[in-house]
Amino acid sequence: MNVGLVGVTGYSGSVLYELLLRHPNVDSVNLYGHSQKVAQSLESVLPQLRRGANILPYDSADIMKNNQMVFFDVSAGVTTELAKPFLDANFPVIDLAGDYRLKSRDAYKKWYKKEAPDEKYLKQSHYGLVDFTSSKGATYVSNPGCYATATILALAPLVINHLIDTTSIVVDAKSGTSGAGKSLSESTHFSQTNENLQLYKVNHHQHIPEIVDQLKDWDEDVPYIQFTTTLLPLTRGIMASCYTKAKSGITEEDVKNAFVQTYSDHTFINATEGVFPTLKQVIGTNFCDIGYQLNPVTHQIVIVSVIDNLLKGAAGQAIQNFNQMFEFKPDAGLDLIPVLP
Amino acid sequence: MNVGLVGVTGYSGSVLYELLLRHPNVDSVNLYGHSQKVAQSLESVLPQLRRGANILPYDSADIMKNNQMVFFDVSAGVTTELAKPFLDANFPVIDLAGDYRLKSRDAYKKWYKKEAPDEKYLKQSHYGLVDFTSSKGATYVSNPGCYATATILALAPLVINHLIDTTSIVVDAKSGTSGAGKSLSESTHFSQTNENLQLYKVNHHQHIPEIVDQLKDWDEDVPYIQFTTTLLPLTRGIMASCYTKAKSGITEEDVKNAFVQTYSDHTFINATEGVFPTLKQVIGTNFCDIGYQLNPVTHQIVIVSVIDNLLKGAAGQAIQNFNQMFEFKPDAGLDLIPVLP
Amino acid sequence: MNVGLVGVTGYSGSVLYELLLRHPNVDSVNLYGHSQKVAQSLESVLPQLRRGANILPYDSADIMKNNQMVFFDVSAGVTTELAKPFLDANFPVIDLAGDYRLKSRDAYKKWYKKEAPDEKYLKQSHYGLVDFTSSKGATYVSNPGCYATATILALAPLVINHLIDTTSIVVDAKSGTSGAGKSLSESTHFSQTNENLQLYKVNHHQHIPEIVDQLKDWDEDVPYIQFTTTLLPLTRGIMASCYTKAKSGITEEDVKNAFVQTYSDHTFINATEGVFPTLKQVIGTNFCDIGYQLNPVTHQIVIVSVIDNLLKGAAGQAIQNFNQMFEFKPDAGLDLIPVLP
Amino acid sequence: MNVGLVGVTGYSGSVLYELLLRHPNVDSVNLYGHSQKVAQSLESVLPQLRRGANILPYDSADIMKNNQMVFFDVSAGVTTELAKPFLDANFPVIDLAGDYRLKSRDAYKKWYKKEAPDEKYLKQSHYGLVDFTSSKGATYVSNPGCYATATILALAPLVINHLIDTTSIVVDAKSGTSGAGKSLSESTHFSQTNENLQLYKVNHHQHIPEIVDQLKDWDEDVPYIQFTTTLLPLTRGIMASCYTKAKSGITEEDVKNAFVQTYSDHTFINATEGVFPTLKQVIGTNFCDIGYQLNPVTHQIVIVSVIDNLLKGAAGQAIQNFNQMFEFKPDAGLDLIPVLP
Repeated sequence: MNVGLVGVTGYSGSVLYELLLRHPNVDSVNLYGHSQKVAQSLESVLPQLRRGANILPYDSADIMKNNQMVFFDVSAGVTTELAKPFLDANFPVIDLAGDYRLKSRDAYKKWYKKEAPDEKYLKQSHYGLVDFTSSKGATYVSNPGCYATATILALAPLVINHLIDTTSIVVDAKSGTSGAGKSLSESTHFSQTNENLQLYKVNHHQHIPEIVDQLKDWDEDVPYIQFTTTLLPLTRGIMASCYTKAKSGITEEDVKNAFVQTYSDHTFINATEGVFPTLKQVIGTNFCDIGYQLNPVTHQIVIVSVIDNLLKGAAGQAIQNFNQMFEFKPDAGLDLIPVLP
Repeated sequence: MNVGLVGVTGYSGSVLYELLLRHPNVDSVNLYGHSQKVAQSLESVLPQLRRGANILPYDSADIMKNNQMVFFDVSAGVTTELAKPFLDANFPVIDLAGDYRLKSRDAYKKWYKKEAPDEKYLKQSHYGLVDFTSSKGATYVSNPGCYATATILALAPLVINHLIDTTSIVVDAKSGTSGAGKSLSESTHFSQTNENLQLYKVNHHQHIPEIVDQLKDWDEDVPYIQFTTTLLPLTRGIMASCYTKAKSGITEEDVKNAFVQTYSDHTFINATEGVFPTLKQVIGTNFCDIGYQLNPVTHQIVIVSVIDNLLKGAAGQAIQNFNQMFEFKPDAGLDLIPVLP
Repeated sequence: MNVGLVGVTGYSGSVLYELLLRHPNVDSVNLYGHSQKVAQSLESVLPQLRRGANILPYDSADIMKNNQMVFFDVSAGVTTELAKPFLDANFPVIDLAGDYRLKSRDAYKKWYKKEAPDEKYLKQSHYGLVDFTSSKGATYVSNPGCYATATILALAPLVINHLIDTTSIVVDAKSGTSGAGKSLSESTHFSQTNENLQLYKVNHHQHIPEIVDQLKDWDEDVPYIQFTTTLLPLTRGIMASCYTKAKSGITEEDVKNAFVQTYSDHTFINATEGVFPTLKQVIGTNFCDIGYQLNPVTHQIVIVSVIDNLLKGAAGQAIQNFNQMFEFKPDAGLDLIPVLP
Repeated sequence: MNVGLVGVTGYSGSVLYELLLRHPNVDSVNLYGHSQKVAQSLESVLPQLRRGANILPYDSADIMKNNQMVFFDVSAGVTTELAKPFLDANFPVIDLAGDYRLKSRDAYKKWYKKEAPDEKYLKQSHYGLVDFTSSKGATYVSNPGCYATATILALAPLVINHLIDTTSIVVDAKSGTSGAGKSLSESTHFSQTNENLQLYKVNHHQHIPEIVDQLKDWDEDVPYIQFTTTLLPLTRGIMASCYTKAKSGITEEDVKNAFVQTYSDHTFINATEGVFPTLKQVIGTNFCDIGYQLNPVTHQIVIVSVIDNLLKGAAGQAIQNFNQMFEFKPDAGLDLIPVLP
């Protein structure tokens, strides 16, 4: 199988490329630059990858002709336009950007501050949260956001089983700097980031409506959640520390059952009662590790999830979507070596 | 004025020593080692301080004879015993350890897992949260804990003014490794700490009852709060991210008024609506910077406070207590240069 | 093929285990603990690996019976004794520790401050610097040290081709903390290591005689080199910055030719004139990247090599030795994804 | 005494401002922005300083009228032009930039790639390496570069006493990111700098000719030295690791005598035989700590010096120059608290 990849130069794009090269069901990967007019050697932009490939000029017809599917790993706002011919042709796409994640065009305009995709295209798009939906049969898969993945996976068992007061949900999410990408900015200038914590987009992060859209699928009454993001002085990883009141009468047993039933057969999710994961234990892997505990004094449940933002939070989940789409083995291409220490 | 210092070798102890040496009302500082039998040169244990002083053997009578007051900066559990002669003699003490912070002996035993001080001594002790109480006239001042300081200062205006549902309080506190002191441990081994986040003492941190004791002084109905601590891959600083539901009808104006009224004349506290502090902006100083915002959608108030755990969270507040105790200028000895960048 | 691994719990041991599990010519890996009397689940000591294996008690006969070869990844001083039955039986061993690296027993005693292996065993041992020797036919392979690998690979083309004044060699080597292993120590306590540089073992590092032994094979006149080691505030990687005077008349062309001829067909070495590698570009891989430049003003040649100390500096080179020993593909099991970013 | 400061917004500029505010001989500090047309509040650009001051528009006549002297802490190339009226008026200036450091206009053009100051102005400028020259009587003081300070102080005793083969000098210098200033760049983007080492300006750093100019004052035969710079994943500090061959017959005693005689009465320099300083032990202070050792096997002398690049390497030495210029106490304004831990 030949696959296309538009956007190899970003952090998650290059990780995705390396995963695809090792994927047992992929024969070759063709690279494209979405704003590129002439071919460029990959070596010249990403020498660290030590690959002889070329990044080809962008041409949608060409992409569809030479590949059985294509990944888009570009900035928000780009695929709104670029994806149209693929959507029209029902050509298989996995889109790692945010353009097609939200259900409502208004929400997209409000949170992304960009023109939204057409309603018909939005309807065609499938939100690929692999642990709860299947991309089998989908042609256009919108791969979830990194914060959204970590947060939804932490809260899902409690929301699905209606164990909590959903008006009480508080998420204190933290991310390393790779989530901010390659663009230079003051907040990611080493002298500023190092030995520091910086909050950003408080109450305004575009993953909030994405999280709420999904939670509402399980419980219509879930309101907008309290969600903050803090930039960490480290490169990779997201930790979502979630807090929520258990409903009256809910016991530790109920909470544990919810997590066990929800995740016992999920290859890439490990949920443990009373043991909170460290961030590092998932780096370099596609795992989402979750610790949870009902505090009998406050009757709050603490749920802490950790993921590698470039893997389970981006390229790794994209591979899971790819596996679902084409009915490959669910963990194909994802037997990764953890970064230890 | 001559002051004694028991425990210069710890991280906050050495900072306290440097502050005392520069304090305009201090003539000399005598150092003592609480388990020391013979004098030892400071140079031999802390060459970085470049000071010719000796650490003298411990003798309570000697300390009282040669000093007008004494600071204890030792591990929890030590002053329970050591402080007795000073308490009996009403000799001025500022104690940076936790032994005399809690109001109840039972609580101390439960949270510290150590034998508690006698009731009469506990009564003699004054909890020196300088922004809300005065140590003037006190002889035994128990200096607040680092997490407790950051958290109480963040929540005080809302609790005092009864603006929030106190059963909803959630604190996600983060600390650098200096808070864990000099003792070697797996969680502070560089290869383990670096590029990592580690939760510890979830629901069991000994600063929880200290925080609640103080909040109850303002509102008897405050229950045990939800409080977690996360170890950061950086050396200095604490950030306490606090979340709480505003009571029905409470407006942004009410919240702002509470912070302005509470802190407008506090030299070392800067509280700002809608602007969240970075951790680094207080490092090297005695400031506590606070950002707060009522989220109109969730009706949660986010309050984020930052302090240097060794200064406002330990040695700096101890100097403030010292200034109050002896009626020196409130900011004497605390005009510090921030660590920039 | 079944292989044994003694010492999975150390940093390089667990990396080696992960590499072996993915190696195309390895059927199963049996784990042994060198001081272990009863079996222990790997999960209990290394939960991050998420592997169901057991670590078996140590028994040399058992190891030889159930495996076709064995890796030792234990502390220095252990295989001097443990390896004897394997050496006597000519059973294939790859030893990642330092015990059998030096040619002289006296040198071992002097630099390692331990009893040396017997002369006859030393003679049986092959120094497995894979880029210059082949382990084909060897039974006991001593895998090179991390600093030694980085330094020898940097200097080899110049020493082999007699282009430099070997009395002028200066090596300023730097390493992350993973090289110091899991043992707790003051110098690897996070608050001490972070934002710091610390020299250690200046002129006394045990890799010095190992480097010199090898260089002397190419040029008998090489004297003891000037070599210092500095501990970096990062986890993985070694950079060896080497300086040496070019002999009179040596040109940039001569230097370049030496590197090109020496390394042009070496899969895991990239040497480039005038472009100095960053440390990060090899992390997660088995590559050794080298930059070199003749300074026409000082007539010094600067050579900078970087490796991942746990891969090319330990487990990765061990796999290369394994491949040579059993005539597998030279790069079998080493197609690794770089840690980016 | 009133002093002016042009360029408070840079990293060393803000440190210098804080030092001046605490200096016992300074009454007030007036701030100027060299490209500024209207006044601007300091708070708006540097809120962390918590100072109410204004940055005034630039006007050389105004500066000379309202101050007894002025500091320039601006980018290289700016004072070449700006300083002229001050030089013409013999008005006291301390210039922290590189424009007037080199003796030769040609060297300046070659290394800085900018138009050089006029010959007559260069002659008027005094190179303010405070440990070896005195700025008493000087009107225009050029404050040394950070790398130059660390390197010259390490080598001075050996060069002055003619103990070494000066053709063998190798300097492997390392710096934190604050030396690169506030400008955003790829190499100081957190995801790139973190867990990395990056060489830069190999053989081309503009501090090389500055070092050589000074060494030649002590020994005319000193040639261009071998000097490389490596960017560290930390914010503050420089370590210069220097290597040089001792002349034949030179003993450990000779080397020690040279350091003792040169530095025994220097307040801010601590040189110790056989004990190598850590970087952190000088951070936050004006100290230069030096360790040195003659290796009897290689006959190389290793000299390692560490400074805080913003203090002894910039603002701290500028204060020392200020003290010399106006005959204040040599250590006035420099009793700083080390950053510990």
